[in-house]
Amino acid sequence: MIPSSSIAKADLAHRSVFQTKYIYSFDEGDKDMRDLLGGKGANLAEMTNIGIPVPFGFTITTEVCEYFVSKNSYPEEFAQQLEEKLNLLEVKTGKKLGDAKNPLLVSVRSGAAVSMPGMMDTILNLGLNDETVKGVIANTNNERFAYDCYRRFVQMFGNVVLGVSHDLFEGAIEKIKEEKNVKQDTDLDASDLKKLVYEFKEIISKNAENEFPENPLAQLKLAIEAVFNSWDNDRAKTYRKINNIFGLKGTAVNVQSMVFGNMGNDSGTGVAFTRNPSNGAKEFYGEFLMNAQGEDVVAGIRTPSKIDDLKEINEAAYAQLLDVKDTLEKHYKDMQDIEFTIERGNLFLLQTRNGKRTAHAAIKIAVDLVEEKLISKEEALLKIDAASLSQLLHPQIKKSAQKNVIAKGLPASPGAACGKVVFNADDAFAWANERDEKVILVRKETSPEDIHGMHAAQGILTSRGGMTSHAAVVARGMGKCCVAGCAEISVNASAKKIIVGDLVLNEGDVITLDGSTGEVILGSVELEEPKMSEDFKTIMEWADKVRIMKVRTNADTPKDCQVAIDFGAEGIGLCRTEHMFFDEERIPMVRKMILSKDDETRAKQLTKLKEFQKCDFIEIFKVMEGKPMTIRLLDPPLHEFLPEKEEDIRKLAEDLDTTFDDLKMTISNLHEINPMLGHRGCRLGITFPDIYKMQTQAISEAAIEVSAGRMEVNVEFELPLIGFKTELQNLRKLVEETILSYGDKVNFNYKIGTMIEVPRACLTADELAKEADFFSFGTNDLTQMTLGFSRDDSGKFLKEYLEKGIFERDPTETIDQDGVGQLMRICVELGRKEKPDLEIGICGEHGGEPKSIEFCHKIGLNYVSCSPYRVPVARLAAAQAVLKM
Amino acid sequence: MIPSSSIAKADLAHRSVFQTKYIYSFDEGDKDMRDLLGGKGANLAEMTNIGIPVPFGFTITTEVCEYFVSKNSYPEEFAQQLEEKLNLLEVKTGKKLGDAKNPLLVSVRSGAAVSMPGMMDTILNLGLNDETVKGVIANTNNERFAYDCYRRFVQMFGNVVLGVSHDLFEGAIEKIKEEKNVKQDTDLDASDLKKLVYEFKEIISKNAENEFPENPLAQLKLAIEAVFNSWDNDRAKTYRKINNIFGLKGTAVNVQSMVFGNMGNDSGTGVAFTRNPSNGAKEFYGEFLMNAQGEDVVAGIRTPSKIDDLKEINEAAYAQLLDVKDTLEKHYKDMQDIEFTIERGNLFLLQTRNGKRTAHAAIKIAVDLVEEKLISKEEALLKIDAASLSQLLHPQIKKSAQKNVIAKGLPASPGAACGKVVFNADDAFAWANERDEKVILVRKETSPEDIHGMHAAQGILTSRGGMTSHAAVVARGMGKCCVAGCAEISVNASAKKIIVGDLVLNEGDVITLDGSTGEVILGSVELEEPKMSEDFKTIMEWADKVRIMKVRTNADTPKDCQVAIDFGAEGIGLCRTEHMFFDEERIPMVRKMILSKDDETRAKQLTKLKEFQKCDFIEIFKVMEGKPMTIRLLDPPLHEFLPEKEEDIRKLAEDLDTTFDDLKMTISNLHEINPMLGHRGCRLGITFPDIYKMQTQAISEAAIEVSAGRMEVNVEFELPLIGFKTELQNLRKLVEETILSYGDKVNFNYKIGTMIEVPRACLTADELAKEADFFSFGTNDLTQMTLGFSRDDSGKFLKEYLEKGIFERDPTETIDQDGVGQLMRICVELGRKEKPDLEIGICGEHGGEPKSIEFCHKIGLNYVSCSPYRVPVARLAAAQAVLKM
Repeated sequence: MIPSSSIAKADLAHRSVFQTKYIYSFDEGDKDMRDLLGGKGANLAEMTNIGIPVPFGFTITTEVCEYFVSKNSYPEEFAQQLEEKLNLLEVKTGKKLGDAKNPLLVSVRSGAAVSMPGMMDTILNLGLNDETVKGVIANTNNERFAYDCYRRFVQMFGNVVLGVSHDLFEGAIEKIKEEKNVKQDTDLDASDLKKLVYEFKEIISKNAENEFPENPLAQLKLAIEAVFNSWDNDRAKTYRKINNIFGLKGTAVNVQSMVFGNMGNDSGTGVAFTRNPSNGAKEFYGEFLMNAQGEDVVAGIRTPSKIDDLKEINEAAYAQLLDVKDTLEKHYKDMQDIEFTIERGNLFLLQTRNGKRTAHAAIKIAVDLVEEKLISKEEALLKIDAASLSQLLHPQIKKSAQKNVIAKGLPASPGAACGKVVFNADDAFAWANERDEKVILVRKETSPEDIHGMHAAQGILTSRGGMTSHAAVVARGMGKCCVAGCAEISVNASAKKIIVGDLVLNEGDVITLDGSTGEVILGSVELEEPKMSEDFKTIMEWADKVRIMKVRTNADTPKDCQVAIDFGAEGIGLCRTEHMFFDEERIPMVRKMILSKDDETRAKQLTKLKEFQKCDFIEIFKVMEGKPMTIRLLDPPLHEFLPEKEEDIRKLAEDLDTTFDDLKMTISNLHEINPMLGHRGCRLGITFPDIYKMQTQAISEAAIEVSAGRMEVNVEFELPLIGFKTELQNLRKLVEETILSYGDKVNFNYKIGTMIEVPRACLTADELAKEADFFSFGTNDLTQMTLGFSRDDSGKFLKEYLEKGIFERDPTETIDQDGVGQLMRICVELGRKEKPDLEIGICGEHGGEPKSIEFCHKIGLNYVSCSPYRVPVARLAAAQAVLKM
Repeated sequence: MIPSSSIAKADLAHRSVFQTKYIYSFDEGDKDMRDLLGGKGANLAEMTNIGIPVPFGFTITTEVCEYFVSKNSYPEEFAQQLEEKLNLLEVKTGKKLGDAKNPLLVSVRSGAAVSMPGMMDTILNLGLNDETVKGVIANTNNERFAYDCYRRFVQMFGNVVLGVSHDLFEGAIEKIKEEKNVKQDTDLDASDLKKLVYEFKEIISKNAENEFPENPLAQLKLAIEAVFNSWDNDRAKTYRKINNIFGLKGTAVNVQSMVFGNMGNDSGTGVAFTRNPSNGAKEFYGEFLMNAQGEDVVAGIRTPSKIDDLKEINEAAYAQLLDVKDTLEKHYKDMQDIEFTIERGNLFLLQTRNGKRTAHAAIKIAVDLVEEKLISKEEALLKIDAASLSQLLHPQIKKSAQKNVIAKGLPASPGAACGKVVFNADDAFAWANERDEKVILVRKETSPEDIHGMHAAQGILTSRGGMTSHAAVVARGMGKCCVAGCAEISVNASAKKIIVGDLVLNEGDVITLDGSTGEVILGSVELEEPKMSEDFKTIMEWADKVRIMKVRTNADTPKDCQVAIDFGAEGIGLCRTEHMFFDEERIPMVRKMILSKDDETRAKQLTKLKEFQKCDFIEIFKVMEGKPMTIRLLDPPLHEFLPEKEEDIRKLAEDLDTTFDDLKMTISNLHEINPMLGHRGCRLGITFPDIYKMQTQAISEAAIEVSAGRMEVNVEFELPLIGFKTELQNLRKLVEETILSYGDKVNFNYKIGTMIEVPRACLTADELAKEADFFSFGTNDLTQMTLGFSRDDSGKFLKEYLEKGIFERDPTETIDQDGVGQLMRICVELGRKEKPDLEIGICGEHGGEPKSIEFCHKIGLNYVSCSPYRVPVARLAAAQAVLKM
């Protein structure tokens, strides 16, 4: 659908007193006119202008498509402009559309501003009919060639323009091959092909509303219309949705005089990259076939040769190709993906575009281009897709591997993992540690109780939850592969079964996860280890010089912190303390502490826990070496720490010297309907001040000890879920008084601030700023509350929302700038109005996502914080944000 | 705690070059100086100025209290001003503090801007010591009186100022009574009392840090200080929190020359209301005791006489009192609550203030005062506490009733109810309908499945949930008494037990609920039926003429709609359609519809449901007679409709021809972690369009039928939980196309709009306004999402938050103007920018709460909508909002 506002704009344009230019000859456009001419058209024009041999032609603009799709008619002056451009093309080529002696044949190709390979339609050899085919025969002296072109054209036209099933044409070809008892199309001779042309026309006559048009101008007009209509076919619409392609006017149409690579052994066709797209090496990389058309290369009937072999076959053409290659790279200042045809020894370029490449190649090419002085370091940084860097930091499924994909979920945490299916965290832990098995933990969803199992597993698969579900967040934090919200599988944990359609997987069955695509694969698949390069480091250095925002990490353990620092993290933006409660040795104390009815027992357990946490912090402080570290005090609701299984409750009841029923009732009383919005975060801190006090003591004592060893400690006490200034006042006092109770011993630097994750916090940020030394956006919860949807439950509609275009992008992946972003803007503005130098960062999952990082830079945040494996992504994205401003 | 900003302001004032006036003689102030002089001081000054006999004195301002509390010292010029005012008092009374012959005795009383009865301290008879008591004896010729005053003073001073336990003094009195073998204090003679004075001083000497000060000026200074200190005692702080008293500077201190009602039979003391505070009748209403001091009236040792009896005892004093009464009423233009003393035949007023009254009395008095031409209709409207009107519409616990309060929860829905305890909705229904028993439904929390039980019950008691929990909202909608979130009770529904401390209540035990106070009372208590008055109707008429906002109601059944219309509702602001799914006859269809795997079964069930809903709407449209009616399409998540109990699942499985395990798994798959933020509202509409289509058809067909009967129908289709414009576009199209499919038959008026309940909706209201004919704030969910807390779970911390002053008010009761209100402002501004005449209303529970209604008027809403029983409250509050602007 075209947004109504653009229609209005287009209408206005058409009503203008100046005549609108609807068609551009190739010598009239340039590469910057992608929006109007599409990528292909713009580059054909550019090549024409810089003297690259390109068959002449013209491009009908995307505005015509927009007009046509909405009104099912053409702008007034369009027909006349088409005639003019066609005349020009005839003059330039010295041929004439429909001329029996010297017929002009053209290709009609779609080409939008953003490449959508294979999504829209193409017609070749247009202009052929029973008359003009004779002219081709006369000119080429090759009847077979002429009829092959003709039958291909009728077939393509019948299918694409007139809507006749491809199978009917293929059936006719099969039949004639059977009759002649041959196997290959190439075994058919001119008369067979001629016969096919007539059979094809009959098929069209029987199956389509209209006959095959003999008039070449009618052919052209119908073909253009077909291309426009293909813009809105289901395939194209789905492709755009899946690939987040929005806001385009439509496709352009390129009408170009044909050249033929199948005119004999002095002709040929090929595709090539100006550098190796896989590893970035500076080598000409591609393949070609002599005496062939483009589709033959794709069809795979003959094996194409390596591009270098062209040198021996046609040295002149090869030299010319090398020359063109160099010209294009120098001109575009980037690796190019080109298509070429050699017609009777003459080279023609049919397409050039910036070539797709792996992250690995992108880095090498960017660095090389700088060394070759083609681009600046800044330009190099902009050439790399920041998000793709995370590909380089995880094991991958080998490209060549065979795989039996049985389901697809959300690509929640990149990398790949292979292992035996287990259905609970204890099993995962036991199998991994006791039996030394590689396991995949499969759950409906994970909870903090599963952490040990997640650590033990190679990868995690959940049937529920989105990109920021517990499983996804924790897995990314661990740098562990995760496929989340895989709704196609049904997990029955008690029966230890996965059901996928008719397939049933049992405990111990082997699966492989691809966390970069969301694929769940049956059996094991070969993986490959990540390779790091010097170029990678170079790019990071350049990025660090450019970026203004700092990059921190979300990490809770010394190991994770070290990984993040190695990746360049400049501090910790979020250290969650809850995992420190879940350790097997500690959880009994935590439970006793929560359930104890007398203060003495509670105090005793808290003291024990304090010692553990102190040790944890000492280790982390040592790793951090004085880098700033934001520690969030306990956040989850207390019931998350209590057992759920009957046997565990029974055991705990014995431990606590109470009855099973009593304990069960207590636990059930603690249960919450909407735990995300329940008794957690600062609400716990206020109603159970002893817990926050204990944590503050543990942190303070650890900091004092490490500082005494002459290492600097910079700790930021972070209070979660603050919505009211009074909450902050209450807890700031508690934390501050606890720290100050250490008197002269306090030898470390500290700040006290708040997470910003409740919408109200944004709206009253000026008030909060009075009590806070820093803000840190928790955009996971902020998104959930602002949009009113829970990451744990959104799986049920999120996919459909994306498919139906309700959401352009998954807001748990990229910051919803109009909603959540608006609140963030308000927050930054109000907060800095009160306290101009207020430190503001982001520690939600969005902190590692390039679009969100760009937004954070725009609104003036001081840092982003993300999981360790995303730190390089963030470093680059933060630099790109500066360069894009 | 004094907010720091006010301290700063006060500091500035004290640094002013002009000397600040810290003390006002009674002839220097007036009634409008409450903030500075407190209510009592301002009124003493006012009375003094209009010639009412008031013992002379002066008032120390609240600013001095503020200064003293924060700095524990006095402003520089204070001492000098105190001396000056004291001198003036001595001149006016002709007595002298500490003068042995003609001693000045004074009272020292607190008095803040808002009355806080009994919360702060009072000292009487100050100025007595061993010397001055002799002067009193000489002047009164009454040694017993003098020593009685003296011992009372020492006792009060010892307790209040020097902190000695009251019990110690009472013990001494008891001891002397035993020794003398008498029962009453009045049986003690002058020498006993003299002895007591010395014993009291010894008690002080042993138990306090300081001796009793003989110096009257020292007594005065210490007493003032004690009053100031009492401002921040726990009792006073708690009182202010509970009563939402915020922003006061402190208490004023009134120093007033003593007059004595206990100087003999020509003396006396009394309290009176100028009109009957219970029913509003214009009659002098009060009581007095001759030869007594104020505390004797309160102590209840002697039975006071009715005020009219004073006429016979002292006609002159009575005449003067009547005169004073009339003067005060005319002057204050309101019913007054006065305290007086007659000293030797001379009348003195010690206090006047606007009298507290019942809602019933408030209405009568307001109407009468208008008839008496004392006030205008507008002033009359402002004199009534709008919230109190709901008292008049529900049965109440009889004031005089004895009650054994066993627990206290939230006063969720007013009125009172008495009945037998049952623990589930089915039992409630069965007991009420089959056994004709009155029952109280007791649940941890209620859900839509409990509706039939709630209907059947007299009242509802829940241990969880806040003022807007399901139980509270539904109960208010039904006009049914409800105590919610009563955390002190523990409900064990399976064992059918309530545990409150040591008390265990079983099924069938009788309790009484007071929904206006939140009290849970053991056994049955006498109730009284509501009385309606002509005056009530008069006030409503006046209010309707003044108010600008319309008042609609939230109602789902013809009966509720009729009730609301009788109360003056001008339309329906929220008709929830979910109850139409829960009817016993329909729920099996609903379940089949949800669980059916083939489209045919689903379609069949939907068609059946459509017919039911159509009938529902026909009935409601008939009652509404063309008044606008907002109908919200299905909102709750589908799993709410599915059974939870094993037996119900088993039965349904048979019905659906599937296995128990299968069905259980399906149901468990539909379960959500945070259902409030889950797959509900418009998300259902988009993923299951058939349901909204069916509802639109039912509404359209009903509207067509009713309109055909020549009755107007104005229906507003409301889409819930909208956060994105794309959601609205998608569903608007669905609803509109469904309506238009009826073609020419469409003879009714309709609008399509959205609930505003997701924060994002407010932030993007300009975009939404493009697709919406109206907005309606669903402030229940908007509050929960903006503040990030779930009404179902907030019980665990809400009470503590209120007690600790984190929340000034319960935001589920009164709109949180700084947070939620800010979003509402943004929404109205953006929405009206796009569409200036956009209709915007509120249908959350806040729509019936006066402070919130005032806010809604301020931001320009078109209407408020509330439960039927709150409609009169809203009509008055909407008028008051206009008058307060």
